[in-house]
Amino acid sequence: MEAGNIYKQVPDDLSDEVFEFLAQSEDVKIERIISKGHKSPGSGWYDQEQNEWVLVLKGSASISFENEAVIDLKEGDYINISAHVKHKVISTSTITETIWLAIHY
Amino acid sequence: MEAGNIYKQVPDDLSDEVFEFLAQSEDVKIERIISKGHKSPGSGWYDQEQNEWVLVLKGSASISFENEAVIDLKEGDYINISAHVKHKVISTSTITETIWLAIHY
Repeated sequence: MEAGNIYKQVPDDLSDEVFEFLAQSEDVKIERIISKGHKSPGSGWYDQEQNEWVLVLKGSASISFENEAVIDLKEGDYINISAHVKHKVISTSTITETIWLAIHY
Repeated sequence: MEAGNIYKQVPDDLSDEVFEFLAQSEDVKIERIISKGHKSPGSGWYDQEQNEWVLVLKGSASISFENEAVIDLKEGDYINISAHVKHKVISTSTITETIWLAIHY
């Protein structure tokens, strides 16, 4: 049984975003992401084959969508991004780390 | 896009546990569970067809396993329970509600 605490073992060096799979099967990946001021590359969109359900556990972030909607996420906020819905992360907190839980399914 | 906050819209009446699917596909269910002093029925075990990854977001709980291990879960603790690993919830906090995120996959 793989177990842990989602808030712990945060690396001191967050110059790069940190990606870690907590559990996975053939079709599903459960991932922790830690950002600090990171955002998506300036041009282009994420266009994903799978649905992604994402929850901000700590920190804050903003996601923009191709339809021009911008969603601000604070602690506890979640959003379901269906496959092929184009989006990008336009900001994450620079003050504290942002801990995401992402379910790719 | 289905969005919300995992800590909000907690019913006042928690005499029964509250189960809510936040997102799902054919093979995956993302569920919020709210307990307050609830535990599994006294006899028998949960023996599930799917894997279950579970995270305690608020409150606390203890899960026992057929091999006699007992795992205490506090805020931020997660555990992956593989399919057919028999288990039961032996306690949840009676003081505050326990908010679980469960991924059935």
